[in-house]
Amino acid sequence: MTFKLTVLGSGSGAPTPTRYNSAQVLNVHERFVLIDCGEGTQFQLRRNSINFNRIELILISHLHGDHFFGLAGLLNTMHLLGRTKDIIIAGHADLKNYIDTIFSISHFKPGYNITFRAIEPNQSGPLLSTDKYTVDVFPLKHRITSTGFKITETRAESKISKEFIFEHGPSVDEIKAIKKGADYVSKEGSIIPNNEILISPPPPRSFVYASDTSYFPNIVPHIKNVDLLYHEATFDRSKYINAREKYHSTAEEAAKIAKEAQVKQLLIGHFSARYNDNNTLLQEACSVFPNTIAAYDGLSIDIPIST
Amino acid sequence: MTFKLTVLGSGSGAPTPTRYNSAQVLNVHERFVLIDCGEGTQFQLRRNSINFNRIELILISHLHGDHFFGLAGLLNTMHLLGRTKDIIIAGHADLKNYIDTIFSISHFKPGYNITFRAIEPNQSGPLLSTDKYTVDVFPLKHRITSTGFKITETRAESKISKEFIFEHGPSVDEIKAIKKGADYVSKEGSIIPNNEILISPPPPRSFVYASDTSYFPNIVPHIKNVDLLYHEATFDRSKYINAREKYHSTAEEAAKIAKEAQVKQLLIGHFSARYNDNNTLLQEACSVFPNTIAAYDGLSIDIPIST
Repeated sequence: MTFKLTVLGSGSGAPTPTRYNSAQVLNVHERFVLIDCGEGTQFQLRRNSINFNRIELILISHLHGDHFFGLAGLLNTMHLLGRTKDIIIAGHADLKNYIDTIFSISHFKPGYNITFRAIEPNQSGPLLSTDKYTVDVFPLKHRITSTGFKITETRAESKISKEFIFEHGPSVDEIKAIKKGADYVSKEGSIIPNNEILISPPPPRSFVYASDTSYFPNIVPHIKNVDLLYHEATFDRSKYINAREKYHSTAEEAAKIAKEAQVKQLLIGHFSARYNDNNTLLQEACSVFPNTIAAYDGLSIDIPIST
Repeated sequence: MTFKLTVLGSGSGAPTPTRYNSAQVLNVHERFVLIDCGEGTQFQLRRNSINFNRIELILISHLHGDHFFGLAGLLNTMHLLGRTKDIIIAGHADLKNYIDTIFSISHFKPGYNITFRAIEPNQSGPLLSTDKYTVDVFPLKHRITSTGFKITETRAESKISKEFIFEHGPSVDEIKAIKKGADYVSKEGSIIPNNEILISPPPPRSFVYASDTSYFPNIVPHIKNVDLLYHEATFDRSKYINAREKYHSTAEEAAKIAKEAQVKQLLIGHFSARYNDNNTLLQEACSVFPNTIAAYDGLSIDIPIST
């Protein structure tokens, strides 16, 4: 039951030799959600051995080029690789113009169906759900409309204890009743309470993607207690003014959000091209929220099932 | 006086781990012309240490995604790197829609001026000229409108022989007159004919880019005797039917064009992703036109001045 994030691009505006533009892929039980799609995302998917065909949903946070200029090429290559499976793309309504323009001027008609889901400015709440996960959105604060995403694993069903089944051999009808909450009356007439039979599933895992955004504590209620928060950290503390002016965050600010929201782990990224390494950024974030890691292209984080 | 081609992407529709999509850059006396701009061109420019700011002209052959999906990212990054220098982009009129859409939806206004030159379907003849080179266009034969480019170095001025200057010490007015074709009368009264004083410049070098196209002998008059012809060779002989159906060429057909046009050197590329190596393609082309080389990402060809 995989719940694993892979960073495809950890850079910001201008890509660097070591950092592609923003893109991440979340593997939820071998079904993949791509979040943002900077130029070169298709190369990075390949480098990370991620099967294009497993991507069933693409979420685009906002329409700055470093977050979606790879979409045209990816959709094109998916077609060339013979894709027939439907795909959902969600983002600002203008993203549809881009896709339509690309398709129209390049005389391209993909061999698969695309459903476009427009995200309204300031939209907040559930966006969509599948049998494996749900996606919620919330507004970020950036120069242009920007959306945060929370992806939460669907809660698994409670299971009946193997020991109980082995000992009592319940019928199919009895199993159904137990799953609905009934206690069990044994052949000897003793009552076994439901909570001794049913094993609760582990809590669903969750991931939040918050980029691009300035420091914006309003997002805290939306990300409370998530297992992993990705929050942009374009600048270090000394570039506080740049962060303000450009509606980005410092590493310290990302950590403040993580701390306030009591998330389990923080991942920072979207680093300005000026940083050759991310030591300063990581140190600043860790001083506020110790369980922080810095993104790099190719990083995978496997979020384990809580016990 | 450089005249050097660098291949940035030698692949066709779907990029592969070793072949990016179509893009080449021609260095004419340290002024750069980018021809096609598949996704990832900006990464390849950087890998090949080509200064973005030196690119003054971008030519787009046709509007299949593998030839222009890198344009948005490149224009974006040029801005982020602080470009202020004008740039000219030439291609099918619809390319302007793409650029306008990108700029509009991503709220992007570059800090430099872009002049767009629409190339009409079936346009043939001069497209533009600078002090260093001229660009001619001619129609190719593809599923959609596709344009071939011929870039010719501007003919250098004739020079006055150093020995003559040393011996006779002509005045500025006399030099001007000689350059206009006058003979020279020495102080002793003897006449030195103009053709013994003026040294003709070497013949201007030329490069043709012909991709994508099916085998189309109509292009031969446009590429006669060029120093270097780049002609697409998507398939080998056994995939002749694929080439026909998709309006591409086989390696043998590219070589036939080179032979008929009596070019000095043929460069083949735009290889289908099915070929792990290009041995077969190169062998087939060489059997018809021996002076053929196969493109690979990062290949540079320095075209020397003819003596």
